[in-house]
Amino acid sequence: MLPAAFLTRLGAIVGDGKLLTDEASCYAYGYDNSRKVFPPDAVVFATSSEEVQQVVRLCDEFAVPLTPRGRGTGTTGASIPEQGGVALSLERMRRILAVDPANRVLVCEPGVLNQEVQDAARPHGFFWPPDPSSAAYCSVGGNLATCAGGPHAVKYGVTRDHVLGLKAVTGKGDIIKTGCYTTKGVVGYDLTRLLIGSEGTLAIITEATLKLTPLPAAVGGLTAHYRDIASCARAIAAIMAQPALPSALEFLDQASLDLIRARHPGLLPQETRALLMIEVDGAPGEIASSAQAIRAACSNDGLIRAEIVSDLKALWAARKALSPLLRDIAPKKINEDIVVPVSRLPELLQGLGELSARYRVANANFGHAGNGNIHVNLLVNPDDAEELQRAEACLDEIFTLVLRLDGTLSGEHGVGREKRAFVAREIDPVTLQLMRDIKQVFDPQNILNPGKMFADPQ
Amino acid sequence: MLPAAFLTRLGAIVGDGKLLTDEASCYAYGYDNSRKVFPPDAVVFATSSEEVQQVVRLCDEFAVPLTPRGRGTGTTGASIPEQGGVALSLERMRRILAVDPANRVLVCEPGVLNQEVQDAARPHGFFWPPDPSSAAYCSVGGNLATCAGGPHAVKYGVTRDHVLGLKAVTGKGDIIKTGCYTTKGVVGYDLTRLLIGSEGTLAIITEATLKLTPLPAAVGGLTAHYRDIASCARAIAAIMAQPALPSALEFLDQASLDLIRARHPGLLPQETRALLMIEVDGAPGEIASSAQAIRAACSNDGLIRAEIVSDLKALWAARKALSPLLRDIAPKKINEDIVVPVSRLPELLQGLGELSARYRVANANFGHAGNGNIHVNLLVNPDDAEELQRAEACLDEIFTLVLRLDGTLSGEHGVGREKRAFVAREIDPVTLQLMRDIKQVFDPQNILNPGKMFADPQ
Repeated sequence: MLPAAFLTRLGAIVGDGKLLTDEASCYAYGYDNSRKVFPPDAVVFATSSEEVQQVVRLCDEFAVPLTPRGRGTGTTGASIPEQGGVALSLERMRRILAVDPANRVLVCEPGVLNQEVQDAARPHGFFWPPDPSSAAYCSVGGNLATCAGGPHAVKYGVTRDHVLGLKAVTGKGDIIKTGCYTTKGVVGYDLTRLLIGSEGTLAIITEATLKLTPLPAAVGGLTAHYRDIASCARAIAAIMAQPALPSALEFLDQASLDLIRARHPGLLPQETRALLMIEVDGAPGEIASSAQAIRAACSNDGLIRAEIVSDLKALWAARKALSPLLRDIAPKKINEDIVVPVSRLPELLQGLGELSARYRVANANFGHAGNGNIHVNLLVNPDDAEELQRAEACLDEIFTLVLRLDGTLSGEHGVGREKRAFVAREIDPVTLQLMRDIKQVFDPQNILNPGKMFADPQ
Repeated sequence: MLPAAFLTRLGAIVGDGKLLTDEASCYAYGYDNSRKVFPPDAVVFATSSEEVQQVVRLCDEFAVPLTPRGRGTGTTGASIPEQGGVALSLERMRRILAVDPANRVLVCEPGVLNQEVQDAARPHGFFWPPDPSSAAYCSVGGNLATCAGGPHAVKYGVTRDHVLGLKAVTGKGDIIKTGCYTTKGVVGYDLTRLLIGSEGTLAIITEATLKLTPLPAAVGGLTAHYRDIASCARAIAAIMAQPALPSALEFLDQASLDLIRARHPGLLPQETRALLMIEVDGAPGEIASSAQAIRAACSNDGLIRAEIVSDLKALWAARKALSPLLRDIAPKKINEDIVVPVSRLPELLQGLGELSARYRVANANFGHAGNGNIHVNLLVNPDDAEELQRAEACLDEIFTLVLRLDGTLSGEHGVGREKRAFVAREIDPVTLQLMRDIKQVFDPQNILNPGKMFADPQ
């Protein structure tokens, strides 16, 4: 429980109606899309960098854990106030401070939604490339904190590639400014990228200078249907080894396709056992030649057919239908976000199939194949303790396989609390200690999102 | 002077012929393109991460300054062993460890030349985008340490955008591994970008996993000649505000053009007072339409003519002739590397003209206009103390102007020793202290390139 003196001062910082301590509100700010719940003792809404600073300083004074939070759409529990204390919601910091097409820049507060950035940029012919599937309702602050990706990362990169500078409040309560307003800048250390993806453990981002990208003049697409997963995996590697870069290259395995077929009969042919959805963008004259080059690259003896798609909405329909379906079927599915070099995808997908069979755990795999980023979904029944145990053992072996293939345990979802136990399998002890030391510099009392990203040292 | 015991052990680490202490060798490793000279007390050549580690640990034990060094082509003195001690040359770590076109990756040691990376990538249809003008003879390690840019950064970004992971030795002598082998990865803090641009003050990079980019299928170009600098500056902003992104957008002012005309009569028409050299790349069918869009954007009442250039070598001839010419004319020129948002270029260029007149200091400006990155060259006579004083005062006002226009003091050259006195004008004291604290974590004894990047605290 938080001391009364603390709560009085907290309320005074943010003003009327911006401090909530009732049970229902605390519950509402205690979960994210990891489906775990750890209610905070209080929820506050800050509306300026200075308010955030005062909240941090107060928490520092009372040694109260402080978990910053956007819209709670993350899947790893990074925004859950696991140790109680204060949940600091940034959802009311939602001003777009500048739209500056001449410099290809948009400046905004962290509570602005990704979609609102797109809506503000589009009339000027620009977009902001990070496009997580939650784009319509996730916040820029959350995108920054997790270094969000999405299907278009294969061509456009991830969040860290599209930010020029930040304003943030460290765990000491210092307001810092990182980066600059220009597309080049090398004065001082790159704190911008250090904060991006740090999941609110180093500082709370209160303003971001985003780099905009011109909207492509034209977009096209194709689908490629495969007889088996092995030939599909080879096709992915072949596409990425030639120069015509797709703007999205999404993959669905047989289990994913079966789920879609069960709900949407007729959407997908029965014989397709692996599917690629490929988007190309660029100048109008470029689309046809890029699509042809990719069609040639993805042709192998397992290809049933590759077809140019004129209706892009149709191209994405199957992919978009999938995630909610998975949630319906297995609400407590174990959702992973592994990455391997694209040339190792054949080995990965074969290995995933073998592990699924050996541990008798249903598994649906799909995702951003062009980056080698596969969303693995172990479709477990949470009431079956024995199955859960098999799933955990299977997951453990999946991670071993990924690391053996030169991969990484997370491409875009992050670590949060869900993956922290595995971080030491990927990062060596010396480098990990250096990261902890950096955390100590930003947040000496360990009040900012404590316990996230790293497991407690042994 | 270094203790004999230290030198004996240093020699034992690197082996025969890899430790030099004679005056001539020390002199040769005591300067860079800043034209300042501070010879080290010893020069060593390491050939592996483990040797680098042992050298660092020895220097740590004896509290000897250690300055890592690539090919010494930097312009800010960042690789100069200003406080003596050991110059650690990485020029013999020149193995390309992997060329992996299927994953668009090249792994190499820091002593590999930028051009050697390009030569290894090109047969596979790829290139590595950083292209400083020293590309033929600068090292990848130096490119990483300075976050090098170049003319193509306007489309392709800078070094930090093209690196997946690093191996490095901290000032404590720890070998760390950052990043991953895949194009997505969010496990742990982004130490990769933190090291890039840190000028060897945090760690010594001993291996880099570089991200390759497909070579464009076609390249085209145009030149645009202007009656005056104001209309040229407006044209730059107009080009960057429309979606057809040039792959290079270089600018030369009248003083630069006059220098070229004096040496190469007939290369440039007499009436041109500002020139843009514009490159476009992409699919073959895209070049003509991009060039047309840019030609339309750059047309204003100050345009004399814009012409499509078929011979790209000719396009770059004038630009490439310039830097050596400037050195010939003013070997001690004060070379700066400022950046402003492109929309502020008209104000910057007008201000530079006014300051040049007020302080009676000849000034030639050229550079990467698409990034707002202008190389300012104050053409001073080093034997004229009074002129030097005027130049220093002028430079001070130039920096004030740049910061007033939301710019940064360096776009790609870095800070080193040449600009450290000005860093505190750009970065606030709190953020600067945080950077110093991070330095302390990596290098607690301050042995790595001491004194660089930051001026001594007051």
